Amino acid sequence: MVLVDSGNTRIHLYENGNITHLSHNEGLLLDYKEIYYINVKPLLKDKLKSMKHWIDISSYLNAYGFYETMGVDRRALCLSYDNALFISAGTAITVDLMEDGKYKGGFILLGLKAMLKAYKEISPALEIELNKDIKLELLAKNTVDAISYGIIAPIKAIIMQNRKNHPIYITGGDGAFLATLFENAIYDDSLIFKGMKRALENKR
Amino acid sequence: MVLVDSGNTRIHLYENGNITHLSHNEGLLLDYKEIYYINVKPLLKDKLKSMKHWIDISSYLNAYGFYETMGVDRRALCLSYDNALFISAGTAITVDLMEDGKYKGGFILLGLKAMLKAYKEISPALEIELNKDIKLELLAKNTVDAISYGIIAPIKAIIMQNRKNHPIYITGGDGAFLATLFENAIYDDSLIFKGMKRALENKR
Repeated sequence: MVLVDSGNTRIHLYENGNITHLSHNEGLLLDYKEIYYINVKPLLKDKLKSMKHWIDISSYLNAYGFYETMGVDRRALCLSYDNALFISAGTAITVDLMEDGKYKGGFILLGLKAMLKAYKEISPALEIELNKDIKLELLAKNTVDAISYGIIAPIKAIIMQNRKNHPIYITGGDGAFLATLFENAIYDDSLIFKGMKRALENKR
Repeated sequence: MVLVDSGNTRIHLYENGNITHLSHNEGLLLDYKEIYYINVKPLLKDKLKSMKHWIDISSYLNAYGFYETMGVDRRALCLSYDNALFISAGTAITVDLMEDGKYKGGFILLGLKAMLKAYKEISPALEIELNKDIKLELLAKNTVDAISYGIIAPIKAIIMQNRKNHPIYITGGDGAFLATLFENAIYDDSLIFKGMKRALENKR
């Protein structure tokens, strides 16, 4: 089964458990008998709809509680496991809770890079490189650590507060780092594809 | 006693318990026998030093644990009470802990407006007006609430985590709103002046 997750900047291809990242132009040249895809890039919508062998499965991505404007990639992510807290750590960080296959809600944080940029825009004095090794048990006594703490500690705190007893599954560019903040968190860059696969299987 | 807190955009004047906000140009015309001031605006530094009757008290603002690059306004704030968690909610949100008159450290969050701007810059779909009435006990099921929760809930969580048994004192433009998030938090727009006053009294 060939799956494609068409994001805003890249196309992600899943085939036999392997993930390849392609430009949109490269992705449009893919030649398979059947490509099941989701797409979040508005500009590509019509183009993809017109492609032979490309099957839009966004309408399969349903769960009790999903809301209308919820992105298809976020829906797919939530469908990968029935009971979990899901984190997608990219430009924004989405956090979503699923219980017994039902969507319980979520929230959206700024991504790490977006936050760093926003500090810098407040003042050049707040332009830092994130100290990922900061000790969260101690308050900070210099600007780099005060901002690093201000970025990392609230993310950890609000996720822990919502974790309950659920496993945490994390995907996205900053996912591997975020996974280090939580005991037993699982980083898996194929979660969206797992969700797409499950949705397809349920449909059949 | 006449006190002046010269900020980045305005000059704040404290006289007989009343606070007046002035432009820098207006502030420079103030005519008193003695004006005790702090200033964070680099461009004004030399000008203020040259003014008759203006006495820079930044060197009085000391406590065990303060760090070199800590802003003078933040130092003054921390000197207003010996045991407290201090929040200054402006362009950035600084959070600082004082115990027995000693500085225990702090952290810097993005201000509410800076966060809203950063979401908008990620995508027009994430441009919202903050829903200040959001219920933090429930996860969100629409974009406005998902972002509002993503802004407000982590601020509350990380402050609660550091509150211990200390009172919370809050100042700054968004301070009145933030004060509504915590039981028994005290919003007071004169905290910086209280700290300046205490520093002056200790010096005498």
